[in-house]
Amino acid sequence: MKLLKEQIIKEGKVLSDTVLKVDSFLNHQIDPLLMKEIGEEFANRFTDEVITKILTIESSGIAPATMLGLTIGAPVVFARKRKSLTLSENLFSSKVHSFTKNETNDISVSKDFLSANDNVLIIDDFLANGEAVKGLLEIAEQAGATVIGVGIVIEKGFQKGGQLLREQGVRVESLANIKSLENGKVEFYD
Amino acid sequence: MKLLKEQIIKEGKVLSDTVLKVDSFLNHQIDPLLMKEIGEEFANRFTDEVITKILTIESSGIAPATMLGLTIGAPVVFARKRKSLTLSENLFSSKVHSFTKNETNDISVSKDFLSANDNVLIIDDFLANGEAVKGLLEIAEQAGATVIGVGIVIEKGFQKGGQLLREQGVRVESLANIKSLENGKVEFYD
Repeated sequence: MKLLKEQIIKEGKVLSDTVLKVDSFLNHQIDPLLMKEIGEEFANRFTDEVITKILTIESSGIAPATMLGLTIGAPVVFARKRKSLTLSENLFSSKVHSFTKNETNDISVSKDFLSANDNVLIIDDFLANGEAVKGLLEIAEQAGATVIGVGIVIEKGFQKGGQLLREQGVRVESLANIKSLENGKVEFYD
Repeated sequence: MKLLKEQIIKEGKVLSDTVLKVDSFLNHQIDPLLMKEIGEEFANRFTDEVITKILTIESSGIAPATMLGLTIGAPVVFARKRKSLTLSENLFSSKVHSFTKNETNDISVSKDFLSANDNVLIIDDFLANGEAVKGLLEIAEQAGATVIGVGIVIEKGFQKGGQLLREQGVRVESLANIKSLENGKVEFYD
């Protein structure tokens, strides 16, 4: 997605060979117009599918997922992160390890909002090692829902998450796929 | 706002005389079309003001704030919650106590995204005791920004937050203002 890649080049901050900060339009400040374009691009990529529910995770997945939901007319559910969950019978839950923050969070979704009748599209802001997406896939599986695929705003293609998911047969669509952050420079695939 | 009040009556769950759960369209599952209408209604309420930045707090403020941002063409910044912040010179921060969860979080906004040149509209999902809004006002003050007002999706008018803010001269616009949750029934002002 050209507009997104331009924004990454213009405003992204390469903090190391593995860390790209896009706080000015996605992770802290949000550019609503770009989010709308991102939502429409996800809708185009999955236009062949019937989507009954968009599943994402707080907080940075919410804006792009909501714009996709507006475009296709589907509700969004965001999984909640907690350091540790009190047990509840009414939750689907899984564990997500963040390598950046070196912490493991429980994530959960109420059983009220995901069921075996749902065709789910998973949306997230970043895909690196794939931990968050794995957690969301587990939750969808617990619900017995069908996962149509995964839509990612920025994939770090030099890390293993995307490859592992695709090898498992999961359809992953990334709007920008980064080949390298070496020497302080963003290089994309394609 | 008629559509919102209807949705609250239809889908809100009154858990006690003070607790209203609207997880099916605002706090866990998100109804994107309703969020768009909410964004447009906020834009109408503040149409006489120039807004350069929308300030909200993760996670449930993000969807309505982003839809407002799309309507008026302004960026959104969401304050981040942390149990305890590592000190950083590049952050505005304050403390927010949640009576519902009985915990205090630090909230913060990067100095990169808020300045003395900004005309800020604060957006949040709920207003009860006003703790979150107070924290956001403090952050805006640290930045030297001008606060235009506060837009709230659901105000619990029977709690003291809204009154205290208005007494301080803060303009507060609530799209639904609840008079009472007694006897398991939602009653609105007006």
